[in-house]
Amino acid sequence: MDDRRNENLTGQTMHGWMRDLFPVCRSLTGPGVRETLAYFARLLPDLKTHAVPSGTEVFDWTVPDEWTIRSAWIEHEDGTRVVDFADNNLHLVGYSHAFDETMPLDELQKHIHSLPAMPDAIPYVTSYYKRRWGFCISENARKKLKSGNYRVFIDADLKPGVMNYGELILPGASCEEILLSTYICHPSMANNELSGPVVAAALAQWLGALPARRYTYRIVFVPETIGAIAYLARNLDAMKTNTVAGFVLTCMGDERTYSFLASRLDNTLADRAARHTLRHIAPGYKEYSYLARGSDERQYCAPGVDLPVCSVMRSKYGEYPEYHTSLDNLELVTPNGLAGSLHAMQRCIETLEANHIYRVTVLSEPQLGKRGLYPDINKAGSYDDETRLLKDTLAYCDGKHDLIALGERIGQPAWEVARVCRTLEAAGLIRKV
Amino acid sequence: MDDRRNENLTGQTMHGWMRDLFPVCRSLTGPGVRETLAYFARLLPDLKTHAVPSGTEVFDWTVPDEWTIRSAWIEHEDGTRVVDFADNNLHLVGYSHAFDETMPLDELQKHIHSLPAMPDAIPYVTSYYKRRWGFCISENARKKLKSGNYRVFIDADLKPGVMNYGELILPGASCEEILLSTYICHPSMANNELSGPVVAAALAQWLGALPARRYTYRIVFVPETIGAIAYLARNLDAMKTNTVAGFVLTCMGDERTYSFLASRLDNTLADRAARHTLRHIAPGYKEYSYLARGSDERQYCAPGVDLPVCSVMRSKYGEYPEYHTSLDNLELVTPNGLAGSLHAMQRCIETLEANHIYRVTVLSEPQLGKRGLYPDINKAGSYDDETRLLKDTLAYCDGKHDLIALGERIGQPAWEVARVCRTLEAAGLIRKV
Amino acid sequence: MDDRRNENLTGQTMHGWMRDLFPVCRSLTGPGVRETLAYFARLLPDLKTHAVPSGTEVFDWTVPDEWTIRSAWIEHEDGTRVVDFADNNLHLVGYSHAFDETMPLDELQKHIHSLPAMPDAIPYVTSYYKRRWGFCISENARKKLKSGNYRVFIDADLKPGVMNYGELILPGASCEEILLSTYICHPSMANNELSGPVVAAALAQWLGALPARRYTYRIVFVPETIGAIAYLARNLDAMKTNTVAGFVLTCMGDERTYSFLASRLDNTLADRAARHTLRHIAPGYKEYSYLARGSDERQYCAPGVDLPVCSVMRSKYGEYPEYHTSLDNLELVTPNGLAGSLHAMQRCIETLEANHIYRVTVLSEPQLGKRGLYPDINKAGSYDDETRLLKDTLAYCDGKHDLIALGERIGQPAWEVARVCRTLEAAGLIRKV
Repeated sequence: MDDRRNENLTGQTMHGWMRDLFPVCRSLTGPGVRETLAYFARLLPDLKTHAVPSGTEVFDWTVPDEWTIRSAWIEHEDGTRVVDFADNNLHLVGYSHAFDETMPLDELQKHIHSLPAMPDAIPYVTSYYKRRWGFCISENARKKLKSGNYRVFIDADLKPGVMNYGELILPGASCEEILLSTYICHPSMANNELSGPVVAAALAQWLGALPARRYTYRIVFVPETIGAIAYLARNLDAMKTNTVAGFVLTCMGDERTYSFLASRLDNTLADRAARHTLRHIAPGYKEYSYLARGSDERQYCAPGVDLPVCSVMRSKYGEYPEYHTSLDNLELVTPNGLAGSLHAMQRCIETLEANHIYRVTVLSEPQLGKRGLYPDINKAGSYDDETRLLKDTLAYCDGKHDLIALGERIGQPAWEVARVCRTLEAAGLIRKV
Repeated sequence: MDDRRNENLTGQTMHGWMRDLFPVCRSLTGPGVRETLAYFARLLPDLKTHAVPSGTEVFDWTVPDEWTIRSAWIEHEDGTRVVDFADNNLHLVGYSHAFDETMPLDELQKHIHSLPAMPDAIPYVTSYYKRRWGFCISENARKKLKSGNYRVFIDADLKPGVMNYGELILPGASCEEILLSTYICHPSMANNELSGPVVAAALAQWLGALPARRYTYRIVFVPETIGAIAYLARNLDAMKTNTVAGFVLTCMGDERTYSFLASRLDNTLADRAARHTLRHIAPGYKEYSYLARGSDERQYCAPGVDLPVCSVMRSKYGEYPEYHTSLDNLELVTPNGLAGSLHAMQRCIETLEANHIYRVTVLSEPQLGKRGLYPDINKAGSYDDETRLLKDTLAYCDGKHDLIALGERIGQPAWEVARVCRTLEAAGLIRKV
Repeated sequence: MDDRRNENLTGQTMHGWMRDLFPVCRSLTGPGVRETLAYFARLLPDLKTHAVPSGTEVFDWTVPDEWTIRSAWIEHEDGTRVVDFADNNLHLVGYSHAFDETMPLDELQKHIHSLPAMPDAIPYVTSYYKRRWGFCISENARKKLKSGNYRVFIDADLKPGVMNYGELILPGASCEEILLSTYICHPSMANNELSGPVVAAALAQWLGALPARRYTYRIVFVPETIGAIAYLARNLDAMKTNTVAGFVLTCMGDERTYSFLASRLDNTLADRAARHTLRHIAPGYKEYSYLARGSDERQYCAPGVDLPVCSVMRSKYGEYPEYHTSLDNLELVTPNGLAGSLHAMQRCIETLEANHIYRVTVLSEPQLGKRGLYPDINKAGSYDDETRLLKDTLAYCDGKHDLIALGERIGQPAWEVARVCRTLEAAGLIRKV
């Protein structure tokens, strides 16, 4: 009951953060990113914000110019303002350059994006690496555009500046690291993307409050793709040396399903922990191979980088109808949806933290009865689930199975096995290898 | 026909031994165990009986005191004897201490065990490591107990003595060993346990009469759990060095099904031989993983012991309704049921004895025709099953497949492949590696 | 369209060759084999014909005497010629010795072969290694034989001579070889065997005309079994050293299905290329394990020889009703059937020729947009199948997947992946390992 109430509270808190951050116009660069990072820095005092100058070469890429958007609208010659960025920051194609011209409807149409199949939705469109301008409106709004001339006005800067990202290192007993990466470059959309950084922040608070951490946690808030690439370019050696598991946190807010996207190498420690967790807490979860990838695992798992990074999600990007539209909003994402994702990630991390290899200290079965761990009478029904769990755990504490393998072998959640292992270790019957 | 008649005779013989031994009150220790071992020593003159003193430490355990039970009963104050150990030795909880007191029904009830769901059955209950007393009766009998006072009388000793076990070593050409282990600690029950030692004895007679043995056979009759642990403690080094395969012989007497319980390591030579045998002689057999274990494989397969030990059974302990009750009797176990288990074990052992790796002596296909092993005309139908078996065997005598792997590969029983291998070896076409 | 038209033309051409060669009476040895080889030598000017003298020992076998058949018939005493080899060369049991005697019908019957279940078909029968004589007729014809005496006349030689085979080596950039083996010892039958050598010849012409070959091609036309054994005996070392993949070409002419017969080692490069090809061009193809073998893979894959040789077929020998009868004729085999087999083998070979291992040259994802390989706007639908193929290829160019593995991993035909790899290699984004 307490757990459930805590989860609800945390879900509400995360949803509150989302409501604060939803209106901010994030993009790869610019003030919206900085505002978002500043918000998280208030939640996570040790979060550091970094800046990479435009033009910096990072692997095969170049950090683009910084984009600042102040206002953008389209007005009909009759004075009606038919689109205004102030109403919804999806209305403007991301990275649109400054513009102020009047043109007939025919010409304007070439610069308008809408979704005929979803007539109420404003689509999300960007053009980071080719200079253009454009507006996104609903198909219904588009149909209402009257003939005549329109003034198109965009007050934006696109010029050398910086790309920002946030980084929080939570040291643990070991320099081995777990990577948590999320992205902060999408304007007002909820499941993809705000649910990711919000759950990342709650997870970071929870990790920060743990009495002890086995692993060091590297938690990064980056613009997707170019941000992850720049971050990798700056930190590749340390990350290749230290990372034992990693997760891209994205699409963590709706309640429809749980999803898993495997790493490129497919059976890393991260994949094993995530699959094991989902099998037990969400048995009907959807599994996607790396072929369905689409976020920053594309960078972390690339050949030569080869980090063990996968994703635990709710409805996966590209797989739900509201994806990349104005309908991916604060109703789609719920406190319960967020709390479920946080819980799943906590179970993953608990599993990793407890993922030791044990070996029994005695030959043949230990006499559990004399330690009060076994019924003192042998009759039908005297042998309960807990006894079974304890004996199965002992049977496979052979110095070869780690906790996850042990759980898989005996068909029990790793966190239950971990609990039993603590009992057995305290009784001197098993020892960490 | 002869084989079948022999099997029937052997089945009848084994069932006869069971009838002799059924009334004996076996337990972990005491005169019932010695009487049972003495019976088997008459069948197997080389069987040696050993004794381990009470109090001996064996790995994590201590050999318990010896239990001698002379009589036990409960009488109502009206003089009616409502339960008497003399009627059925399941009536007394195993290892009950001496007792003589009168008490009201309410108090007595706390010491009575019955099975509401099986109202005719007397349950089997023991309390080896905690001193208590108790009686087991059918639910129907329990319901008939009148109010009033009862005298409870138990004439038993529970004091330092010995724990006995039997051991028979049949030497073979190699010091590599096959372990056959069965248990002799259950009072009057038939499938679990008398079928096990009885089939073990028949198997030992058959092995002893073989003209030659490739392997040495270590055949042990031990009290379950503590007996196997004590035996291991005394023989661990030799057993770890020499054992190539082992089988716990238990639950070998009914006719309902065949079962297989895998070793902990799951794919040892013993598992491979047993699975291969059962696939061919009992295709619908039930397979259980090591998680369903329950007998002395728990000791032999424990981490650090790691012997390759599995079980070929009929209805497995815990999986048939009569298990551990008075209904597990001489009607449940039949001559046919016993003969089938013996036959399965013989096939397993024949497979192990013949499990060589062969390599062909010629490059490309040998010309079988010139050796009379192939039809001398090539027409439809000239190519029969025996020719196919012979050519398939040759195709995989590549120095990599052992006999079992060969049989699995070509879909034929190892004993048929062994027959063909003898022909091919005699013709000089294959050689043992 | 062009491809399809070319295939039809090639199919017609191959079928024309079959019509030319169908009437020739081939056997293990003799003029029919030489005539067949001479025909192929006109199509393939570099084809060399070799001769192995009768009596030569080749591994476990001895090359048999040469068989020359001039005429053979049976006449009833009333002057009716009831069977004549001149009508169909299947009428005579292969390798029948010379004979001229008159005998009653009863005696004659012992030497006559027919198929009661296929009353119109003349069966195909040989007796290479035991001297006998015999005739094959349809069951219907057999039923019409009248009582009385028959003169049996066979004008044949069976005496020391040679066994011939053909060999064509097409050198490539590497001395690593691909083996194509087909057989030329069957009289007038179409799917088994003429389709095999005819497709081999077309494939050889296509290979000879390629602007470049990575591999050397060893193409052999041998009498089945003894010819392959003799060829192996002469070339074993070179073949074991150089062969990376091989195919027995047989049963390539009907249109009913595609089939695959695995090599003995089952997952060699040849098997991988063949399975991959068939999965994409004939998804419903039938797969046979090596246990269903029946042609010269029996020699090439024998233990100790161990060449990676499998078969891509249409209806497999032994699996279609007309097999080894006079109904396996030029109607069963069609131009389309032959063209399909040729196409499948060409895809296999293209796959092998392109089967490199690649590695990306940059860390993290390359920026495809700046090379014109990626859409310059990010909106729904901008990401097409070609972009997906390109990115998936890059994701697995990790220095570990060869082309076939890459295709299997991403679910695309190797030849499509090869095309993309050429683009990526030209762009400097991947390099051969």
